[in-house]
Amino acid sequence: MSDDATAFVPGHVTGFFSAHPADDPAVAGSRGAGLTLSHGVTVTVEPAPETTVSLDGEAVEMPPVADVLRSLGVTATVDAESDLPLGAGFGVSGAMALGTALAANAVFACGRSENELVTLAHVAEVRAGTGLGDVVAQARGGMPVRVEPGAPAHGRMDGVPARPEIEYVAFGGLSTADVLSGDTTTLTAAGETALEALRAEPTLDRFVAESRRFARDAGLLTGGRVETAIDDVRAAGGDGSMAMLGETVFAVGTGLSDAGYDPERCRVHPAGATLRSE
Amino acid sequence: MSDDATAFVPGHVTGFFSAHPADDPAVAGSRGAGLTLSHGVTVTVEPAPETTVSLDGEAVEMPPVADVLRSLGVTATVDAESDLPLGAGFGVSGAMALGTALAANAVFACGRSENELVTLAHVAEVRAGTGLGDVVAQARGGMPVRVEPGAPAHGRMDGVPARPEIEYVAFGGLSTADVLSGDTTTLTAAGETALEALRAEPTLDRFVAESRRFARDAGLLTGGRVETAIDDVRAAGGDGSMAMLGETVFAVGTGLSDAGYDPERCRVHPAGATLRSE
Repeated sequence: MSDDATAFVPGHVTGFFSAHPADDPAVAGSRGAGLTLSHGVTVTVEPAPETTVSLDGEAVEMPPVADVLRSLGVTATVDAESDLPLGAGFGVSGAMALGTALAANAVFACGRSENELVTLAHVAEVRAGTGLGDVVAQARGGMPVRVEPGAPAHGRMDGVPARPEIEYVAFGGLSTADVLSGDTTTLTAAGETALEALRAEPTLDRFVAESRRFARDAGLLTGGRVETAIDDVRAAGGDGSMAMLGETVFAVGTGLSDAGYDPERCRVHPAGATLRSE
Repeated sequence: MSDDATAFVPGHVTGFFSAHPADDPAVAGSRGAGLTLSHGVTVTVEPAPETTVSLDGEAVEMPPVADVLRSLGVTATVDAESDLPLGAGFGVSGAMALGTALAANAVFACGRSENELVTLAHVAEVRAGTGLGDVVAQARGGMPVRVEPGAPAHGRMDGVPARPEIEYVAFGGLSTADVLSGDTTTLTAAGETALEALRAEPTLDRFVAESRRFARDAGLLTGGRVETAIDDVRAAGGDGSMAMLGETVFAVGTGLSDAGYDPERCRVHPAGATLRSE
């Protein structure tokens, strides 16, 4: 048994989605598409008599992380360092759950496969109501398309073959749990339409265009800073949309800089979540 | 349409496998497990009036590459640069087919999804008889486990969550086509046994141990340099096995150096095949 182990999990911005609840949390999930980001979360797990979780040095309550450790039958100190804000649509809670699963499996020699670890983290996220599709996307990397919902034994993934630079600005948070616990009929219809269009033309441009249409049709663009920023990016000749679910705008290339914003810059990440090399 | 596009595809060493032929080349494939390597093949595709293919600056006949371009309805100059020897069990032909598919899709704006591109390359490899499982493994990265054979719509993958350093020595080549066209009954039985054992304990150590057992049981260790090198690695306290199918030995960590060999060094690659960022 090593002293500790560390995993890196890319951030994940969902552009559009449809919600697919189910009694079995491994079957539940979302269909949709997004971008994994080179900005992400680095999670270090060290055995300890009781479980504590910190994010950027501060103690946090993170039910999916505790759930993953319970499922593995271990207790540990989990320290996460994130490039990304929590609750702003970057999949930070999914990243913490998945990074914990990978690192704990290594440090405690649990002997689980990658699909088993992804399943543990996905189930923990679904149970906590903090996400439906981030974990499977973060396990894959690139520009993941969730063709069928659920953990690896149930879901099916594809990808858009593009690795662009991405800029983003996070104005604030939206509660995933609040949106997902409301009526998701309109949202899901818009998400299914967007997915069909993207699968017919799996390109970066189509992804961004369908993400914008989804945000509007699902009623999530409500005339605030997000909508203004997207309009500004388009007026400057770029393209972007809203991160689901956060008060966050992403743009391709230098779209936000060109529109006069002061964004964070990263890339689409080529890989899924991975143990840091020893 | 860009002037050219470039993709990187990791090398892939199969440790053990079972062959699963089928009339439909998208359904045909292999089950088994292997290592993707940070040493790989960089493929650049540029539109041209007729298709030519080079590897490390020399013109080569590479039927899977020509097949991929034909399937996409394009002609191009394909230039590949490889860290790895051809025909020695590193999946160079699969890497060239998959890299060509990704780069050609980008340069010609073919609008295919990642699964569609992996399928084109897999089908081309199967048709040419040069491989059954390298392409799907190289699309995934890490330590891929081929749970069910075939292209993405048919196959199923898992992974061993480990990213060790790897050393290898390539003594020479074996013809994949010759081995796969012979009687594969014994080989396939040994491969199925190894896969079952690895799935029960998906760890690096188990992978190497099952790979060694497979090489012996399938009758591929014939008292030559490969068998001697594996014995030397084990005598020096390390562990390693044979690359399927090549006269090549791989070892974990510094296993071959410790045994007095002068190996190449790389790592398990964290990502699958990817377009080089523009």
